[in-house]
Amino acid sequence: MAVYTQVDDLTLSHFLSHYDIGEATSFKGIAEGVENSNYLLATTKGQYILTLYEKRTNPADLPYFLGMMEHLASKGLPAPLPIQDIEGNALQTLAGKPACIISFLSGVSIDHMTESHCAALGLILAEMHKALADYSAERPNGLSLEGWKKLYAATNGADTVSLGLASFIEEELNFLSENWPKSLPTGTIHADMFPDNVFFTGTKITGIIDFYFGCTDIYAYDIAVCINSWCFDNNHTFQPAKAKRLVEMYDTARHLTPAEMDALPVLCRGAALRFLLTRLYDWLNPVEGAVVRPKDPMDYVKRLRFHQQVKDAASYVI
Amino acid sequence: MAVYTQVDDLTLSHFLSHYDIGEATSFKGIAEGVENSNYLLATTKGQYILTLYEKRTNPADLPYFLGMMEHLASKGLPAPLPIQDIEGNALQTLAGKPACIISFLSGVSIDHMTESHCAALGLILAEMHKALADYSAERPNGLSLEGWKKLYAATNGADTVSLGLASFIEEELNFLSENWPKSLPTGTIHADMFPDNVFFTGTKITGIIDFYFGCTDIYAYDIAVCINSWCFDNNHTFQPAKAKRLVEMYDTARHLTPAEMDALPVLCRGAALRFLLTRLYDWLNPVEGAVVRPKDPMDYVKRLRFHQQVKDAASYVI
Repeated sequence: MAVYTQVDDLTLSHFLSHYDIGEATSFKGIAEGVENSNYLLATTKGQYILTLYEKRTNPADLPYFLGMMEHLASKGLPAPLPIQDIEGNALQTLAGKPACIISFLSGVSIDHMTESHCAALGLILAEMHKALADYSAERPNGLSLEGWKKLYAATNGADTVSLGLASFIEEELNFLSENWPKSLPTGTIHADMFPDNVFFTGTKITGIIDFYFGCTDIYAYDIAVCINSWCFDNNHTFQPAKAKRLVEMYDTARHLTPAEMDALPVLCRGAALRFLLTRLYDWLNPVEGAVVRPKDPMDYVKRLRFHQQVKDAASYVI
Repeated sequence: MAVYTQVDDLTLSHFLSHYDIGEATSFKGIAEGVENSNYLLATTKGQYILTLYEKRTNPADLPYFLGMMEHLASKGLPAPLPIQDIEGNALQTLAGKPACIISFLSGVSIDHMTESHCAALGLILAEMHKALADYSAERPNGLSLEGWKKLYAATNGADTVSLGLASFIEEELNFLSENWPKSLPTGTIHADMFPDNVFFTGTKITGIIDFYFGCTDIYAYDIAVCINSWCFDNNHTFQPAKAKRLVEMYDTARHLTPAEMDALPVLCRGAALRFLLTRLYDWLNPVEGAVVRPKDPMDYVKRLRFHQQVKDAASYVI
C-alpha cells in the first residue's frame, strides 16, 4: 500500500532502456495493491504501472500471476498487460527486487457499491473464469482450508482481540473441515476481488488488478469472496439485493450448477474466515514502520456470524 | 509523503461537480510533497493533483501559498496552477480538510544531480525570484533565526542522537545570532527547493512543487538552501563544480550583489542548521504510524561543519 523500495532516476532510465516504451515523463509512487511498491510511470509512449515485488510475494509464483494477467488481457478482459522488454521478458529484477511493468488501467475504485456495480462485478467474474479456463498453469490456493489451519496455528492471542474469539475460530475450522465442498467445478480464480481491486468508469468495469492471490480453486469461492467484500454495508449488514444481482449476472455468463448454489453458505463462511484470519494475524503482528493500520478482524467476525445463521443458498439471492 | 485522508468515490464525484474539469477517470494516492495527502486525479479533461492539507500546514497560510503558485504559473514558470471551481474559488474543504486541485506537472525528480541540473536550478531560482517580485503578499519565514531558536528550545535529547550535538547547535545559534545578515535584498522565496520538489525532463525544469514553506526572506537564502540540498554527494562531500554552476546561472538572471555573495557562507550555515533542526526534532519526536523513517539529522551536521570551515564565498564558486 505504499512505496517500500525507492527507484532513483538513473536506475529508472537504465531500466527503461531495455524496453521500447519511450522515456519517463513522470514517475510517482502510488498507494495501491497489496504489500508491493507501485509506481505510476508516464512515458513518451503511454502510461504504465511499475511494480516491485516485496517479501510477501513469492518470486516463484510471479510467472503464474503475470501469465494470468497476460492471458486475460490477450482475451480483452480489463486486466493489466505485463510489458515485455526488447528481449521478450516481462519479469525483471530492479533495485534487488523482482519487478514488472504492466499497462495502466483507467477507472476509479468504488466505496459506495450499488446493485449496478455488483451486477457488473458478477458478470466480469464469470467472464474471467471462462477466459481462464484454458490457462493451463496451476497454483494451489495456500489460503484455503489447510492454509487457514496453519495460519491459525501461527496466530497467538485471538482472545486478546475479543474474548471467545479463539474458540469461535476453532469451532468454525472444525465445521469447515467437515463441510468444505470437495467436488465443485474448479479453475483459475482471482481469490481477492475486493472493491479496491476493481476500477469502474461509471458502472462499467475498466480495470481488475492485484492478481497476487490468483490460484486454482473452486469457482464459486470467488463469488463467496465477492459477496463478503461487496454485499455488506459499513455496519456489516448483509445487502441481499446486491448479492442477488451479483449471483444472477454471474450465472448469465457462466451457469451455476445446483451444487455450486447449494454450497454458497459454506463457501461464504470459508471466505469470511479467510479474511478474518489474515486480518487477525496482521492485527496481532503489526509490521514495524507499517504504513497502514491493520484492518479490523472483527468486521469479518460479524460477516461470518451472518453466514452461520443463513438457512440456505436462497438467502443470498432473495 | 503519503495518503492520510481517504477520499471515497461519492465524495470525489460530488467535489468535482463544483468544477468544470470533467469526470474522474483515475484517482490514485501518491507519495509526494510534505505532510499532506496527495492524489493524482485524471479526468476526461486533463490531469491534476488533489491535495488535502493535513495538520502541519496552517490553513491561514494557504491563500499565500496558492497565490504564489498562481502568480508563478500565470507568468509561465512551471509551478502548479490552482484550479478554480465554477464560482472562482481554488481553496476548498474536502473530507474536513482544506483542499485544492492544482494542475499536473510532468517531469521526474533527480537523485543523481549533474552540473547541468544545478545550472538549470540556479537559473529558474532567479527567474522565480524575479517573477515573484510583484507578488505583494507577505509571510514571515517562521523557520529563520528566531524560529530555529524556538524549535531548538522545544527539542529535547540532542545529545542522545550524538554526544556534543546540543552544544554544537547552541554555539551555532549564537554565531548566527551575531552574524545573520540584516540588510540583504529580500522578497518571496521558495525556502525548500530540495531535489524532490523539482521535476526535470532531460535537463530542463518542467515542474516546481511544494510551495508550503514559501515566505518573505533573503533571496540569497534560497540559494543557500539549494547549495545544501543539491551540491553535496551522498557522502556529504561538497561538490564545488555544481555550486559554481548554480550560483553562476542564478547570477545571469538576477545579478548577485557583492554583499549577497559575501553572505553565502553564513547563509549556508543557517540553511544547514534549519534542516538539521527540523530533522532532529522529527527524529526525536517520531509520529506514531508515520509512513517514512525520519531523515538523519546528522547529514546536516556534516554539511554545517563544511560551511563552518569555509574561508569565504569564493569557496562556493571556485
